[in-house]
Amino acid sequence: MKRKRNLYLKTIPVEEAREKYLSAIADLITVKHETIKVTESLDRITGSAIYAKYSSPLFNASAMDGIAVRAADTAYASETSPVVLQEADYMVVDTGDPIHPPFDAVIMAEDIVETEGEVRIIASAHPWQHIRPIGEDIVAGEMILPGNHKIRAIDIGVLLSAGILEIEVVKRPEVAIFPTGTEIIEPEEEPEEGSIIESNSRMFENMVTVAGGIGCRFAPIIDDYEKIRDAVAQAADRYDMVIINAGSSAGTEDYTVHVLRELGEVIVHGVSVKPGKPVILAVVQGKPVIGLPGYPVSAYIGFENFVTPIIQMIARRPERLTETLQAHISRRLVSSLKHKEYVRVKVGKVGDKFVAAPLARGAGAAMSLVRADGFCIIEQNSEGIEAGDVAEIELYRSKREIENTVVVIGSHDLILDVIADIMPNAYKDMFVSSTHVGSMGGLMALRRGEAHIAPIHLLDEESGEYNVSYLKKMFREPMALVKGVHRIQGIMVKKGNPLQLEGLADLCSGTGTEAKDLAGEEKDGKETAGAKMAGEAICGGGSAGEKIASNVPAVKKAASVRYVNRQRGAGTRVLFDYKLKQAGIDPSEINGYEREMATHMAVAAAVAGDGADAGMGVLSAAKAMGLDFIEVAPEEYDFAIPVKFLELPHIKAFLEILQSAEFHARLAQLGGYSAERSGEVILL
Amino acid sequence: MKRKRNLYLKTIPVEEAREKYLSAIADLITVKHETIKVTESLDRITGSAIYAKYSSPLFNASAMDGIAVRAADTAYASETSPVVLQEADYMVVDTGDPIHPPFDAVIMAEDIVETEGEVRIIASAHPWQHIRPIGEDIVAGEMILPGNHKIRAIDIGVLLSAGILEIEVVKRPEVAIFPTGTEIIEPEEEPEEGSIIESNSRMFENMVTVAGGIGCRFAPIIDDYEKIRDAVAQAADRYDMVIINAGSSAGTEDYTVHVLRELGEVIVHGVSVKPGKPVILAVVQGKPVIGLPGYPVSAYIGFENFVTPIIQMIARRPERLTETLQAHISRRLVSSLKHKEYVRVKVGKVGDKFVAAPLARGAGAAMSLVRADGFCIIEQNSEGIEAGDVAEIELYRSKREIENTVVVIGSHDLILDVIADIMPNAYKDMFVSSTHVGSMGGLMALRRGEAHIAPIHLLDEESGEYNVSYLKKMFREPMALVKGVHRIQGIMVKKGNPLQLEGLADLCSGTGTEAKDLAGEEKDGKETAGAKMAGEAICGGGSAGEKIASNVPAVKKAASVRYVNRQRGAGTRVLFDYKLKQAGIDPSEINGYEREMATHMAVAAAVAGDGADAGMGVLSAAKAMGLDFIEVAPEEYDFAIPVKFLELPHIKAFLEILQSAEFHARLAQLGGYSAERSGEVILL
Repeated sequence: MKRKRNLYLKTIPVEEAREKYLSAIADLITVKHETIKVTESLDRITGSAIYAKYSSPLFNASAMDGIAVRAADTAYASETSPVVLQEADYMVVDTGDPIHPPFDAVIMAEDIVETEGEVRIIASAHPWQHIRPIGEDIVAGEMILPGNHKIRAIDIGVLLSAGILEIEVVKRPEVAIFPTGTEIIEPEEEPEEGSIIESNSRMFENMVTVAGGIGCRFAPIIDDYEKIRDAVAQAADRYDMVIINAGSSAGTEDYTVHVLRELGEVIVHGVSVKPGKPVILAVVQGKPVIGLPGYPVSAYIGFENFVTPIIQMIARRPERLTETLQAHISRRLVSSLKHKEYVRVKVGKVGDKFVAAPLARGAGAAMSLVRADGFCIIEQNSEGIEAGDVAEIELYRSKREIENTVVVIGSHDLILDVIADIMPNAYKDMFVSSTHVGSMGGLMALRRGEAHIAPIHLLDEESGEYNVSYLKKMFREPMALVKGVHRIQGIMVKKGNPLQLEGLADLCSGTGTEAKDLAGEEKDGKETAGAKMAGEAICGGGSAGEKIASNVPAVKKAASVRYVNRQRGAGTRVLFDYKLKQAGIDPSEINGYEREMATHMAVAAAVAGDGADAGMGVLSAAKAMGLDFIEVAPEEYDFAIPVKFLELPHIKAFLEILQSAEFHARLAQLGGYSAERSGEVILL
Repeated sequence: MKRKRNLYLKTIPVEEAREKYLSAIADLITVKHETIKVTESLDRITGSAIYAKYSSPLFNASAMDGIAVRAADTAYASETSPVVLQEADYMVVDTGDPIHPPFDAVIMAEDIVETEGEVRIIASAHPWQHIRPIGEDIVAGEMILPGNHKIRAIDIGVLLSAGILEIEVVKRPEVAIFPTGTEIIEPEEEPEEGSIIESNSRMFENMVTVAGGIGCRFAPIIDDYEKIRDAVAQAADRYDMVIINAGSSAGTEDYTVHVLRELGEVIVHGVSVKPGKPVILAVVQGKPVIGLPGYPVSAYIGFENFVTPIIQMIARRPERLTETLQAHISRRLVSSLKHKEYVRVKVGKVGDKFVAAPLARGAGAAMSLVRADGFCIIEQNSEGIEAGDVAEIELYRSKREIENTVVVIGSHDLILDVIADIMPNAYKDMFVSSTHVGSMGGLMALRRGEAHIAPIHLLDEESGEYNVSYLKKMFREPMALVKGVHRIQGIMVKKGNPLQLEGLADLCSGTGTEAKDLAGEEKDGKETAGAKMAGEAICGGGSAGEKIASNVPAVKKAASVRYVNRQRGAGTRVLFDYKLKQAGIDPSEINGYEREMATHMAVAAAVAGDGADAGMGVLSAAKAMGLDFIEVAPEEYDFAIPVKFLELPHIKAFLEILQSAEFHARLAQLGGYSAERSGEVILL
């Protein structure tokens, strides 16, 4: 039960850590060279200056198709008194042919009249006219490329022309990458309860490539001190750099720092950055050895902050430029003075301003890195950024792409993914970016000028009509409601509906308030009203539940049906509340009413796992997760768009997609949609 | 003697040609897909949207190291009345461990007090605290990447986490590349008189790679109609695209267009662009087949205009972005209304403006592409750009690099190459760019604010002093003269000095004016005064001269010593004129006085070839080309720098290099220099 932990990590700022480490290894690092074929040198870095072996042209050469002559012979030629040259006094030449004495000029074919055995010349040629002198382009012995130059296609052409077949380039540093952890499995293995698919090392491998090195990924090592130590010691001998992934924190099985202390010197352990604090920067046998945290976002940020600069140093590659722009932050970002924080953001251009919408901030949210357009960096000495403030964003999509992206903020539906997929395929260099904040959140974003389009499905409880009244109420500017899809909302339950739920009423166990009252009491094993269903729910979920039966305490107290809700402002939440009200159910009777998730798919996943029994969502999400579905109500999922955006090329493309055959075919695949009016524009 | 030519090519504008061709092939092109391993997918383009197979996390997982508890058990825990849990009522968990019912919260290790068999909890845990619910990051079934997405390292990590091992990506188009021409040789072969080293195909191969395709380069084909036809026909069948290099013009052996007319359809022949007019855009067996001109710059521009967009189309890669900036053009550029012109420029930032200095405009000047920082494009409807006008430059170096580059304009010396080589090696991300316009040209550029540094060696004939008086005379602003090197100027002659020249007096054959008078006369075989020397000169030059003896007319008339001069304003020209004056020699007595070259190395190359016998230059250039050298005078080669630039970091770096051990070692290698005062700053 007791395991040793190093609970407290003393951290230092990123810049200080980097400087401290770089100066510790600066004298240890050696830039190695190798000789390679010029034809295989694209993107490599020259090791030293390269000098031409041959001149180009290699000889005085005709620059035109025509005839080679002695310029002096033609000095008085004119239209009225042409000079006539006999065969022996000129030579027909094509472009590139050598010109030798006594010839010292070329006359273009267009400017002569050729008859059998002689030519008539009607304008004088000056000496060296249309002759490319030897070495005009490249002079033997001259420097063609300096050292530290990244070789381009044109350079390869010129090197070969200058007689250079092989060149000395900087050797790419080889970086050993060790995934560690007893719980990790290879991506090819079938995951079991508790398995974590090891993918960071593959990300690193490719980040090494991008930085200019060669990544050498090893098979995972279990959490075993000696095994990790031996592997690192061997690798430090053979490779230019070593990365150890995970085990860099202060957990019970985090051996990395101890291993590195035994093998060499730990320069830094713990950096004031979020995500990415548990970084270890060490030197073993004169080689940089870095321990990176296991959470993918932390791993990524740790790599970019500490591994990339070292690879670039050994590979002699210039620092990569990060394009930056100034953007309005769409919501308040609070951060601690204790660390520098990297907040992933989606960036869009709406009207004439750039807007950055923060994404999930968790260290485990790898998808937020995939979805992000850039980072908003909150410096260590800042407490955060207010909504609407302008901040600098480090982009990792190009500004041009961002400018051609439709910014969609609002309710989530799988059809947004479908549109985002179709768009760049059907419309060159146009993209869709969507952020899911619920229908009301989307309308608020539209009002603040942060989005082009808000997908919404808001029921007006009074009129029973969808969407229109909200737009009329909330906007003064001319708005369009573009029809989207009809879709079915319902209760998603586990496959086979083990709790045999039939509708909203079954969610209401009547134990909601009771559960709260029980909270402080001693556990006494007494069963609540929800026992039957809850008991099944807890033990259900198939194999996963069974596997852990041996090592978790037996179920002592049953709970009601565990519901998982959507966030406030979500159309699905509005609908759920409306339906509860119709049915006369008090939300406090729903166990889990307060547990909020941001998308249909997140709710579906919770229901598919063993953390929840039911949640409201659309049929397509239930289908995607293999859940059963209890239909509740059809609804209209539409798009709110300010009229002023309707004529923008990418917005027009968006509307065209709604009416396209491909879109309708994809809807049919998803199931649960009808789309008769898709793309219809209603001006309000 | 007579060969068939197609003298006139009807050309159309670039944009029209591209549009015409793209629309002709649009329906023929098919984007192919292939399935590859995710681990090998960096930089590939997704063929279609990719959906997650697994959720991540795969189960409800602890987000912290600590203990899993029932939240309800802890509801009333506080510092004053801690809750004590027995072993059966909690579970020690590490980050990532699965959490199962009945546990529904995690308490961080820092927040508990652990004693034998029990823990004390001093704050309540809310349900789902520190638990990452299943699918928090990735939900099985959700779209991870859309189609047409370029895969990054982070994407690879997420794909693997989501259980995706293989993905469908766009197949890279395979492009067959055929060099043609009887005179071309492989780079490995020893060049002979008339040989042209074939290097374009290797440049293309790498340009194909950069555009997103796979270049398949074939061995050169001689100029033979049937051979070219058969090769193209076969390749069109097997490859996605075919490039034929050279033979696209209207010369006597330019078969390409005829071949393509026989095999398929020629859509465009001849484009109004300079360089790069003779382009052929054709379709053979439904495949794009493009004939590109032989001159390297023409070939490059033709490729970028017509091949790159097609590869990007088939490879579904976005158009590459070209960074542009507005720069002042340093000298007048006259262009014809008949074509669009691509002028290569060097770009520098001097003070707060960007300045673009045009480079050599010839189609054969491949080094100008290597040296260029970008293109200034003169549109077809423009007659050119005036000096000082602002024009848009398409960059191919980054703006940041340009901003960190020392702009050197003035007299040429090999030591500038040496400094340019040392700079980026010794100073991170700092560069030197030099343009050779002679000493006076450099000072003029400084005055116009187009350069940071002008290297000069200008003799004041009155005082006998170098450089100082020119700066005092020409500048009002405070100037610094930074001492460079002492170097030796002299007459470069062919190895072994076959004409046995001893000094300037021997250049003066006394036939200069006579030669002019002879220009209009009939060739009569009579020998001039320079016969002895000239005869040797003409027949000299070793093997090259002998090889062509059979196919050129016999020498009929001897000339004087053929001198090759430097351009007006060059310090070497000033020195030469001064020395001629001292010796009482009239320039008209020098045969070749009017023939101007821009650098020491170009003069040296001319003397090394069979086009000239003597030229003035520095010892290092003579050494580099293996020439003999007749010393004329030592001189001071210094750097003029406005005082206001002295504190710029890259200028400081430049001055530091002048005093560095490495620089002095490299000077010793070159020979002919002394550098006692290098880097000494004299404020004027």
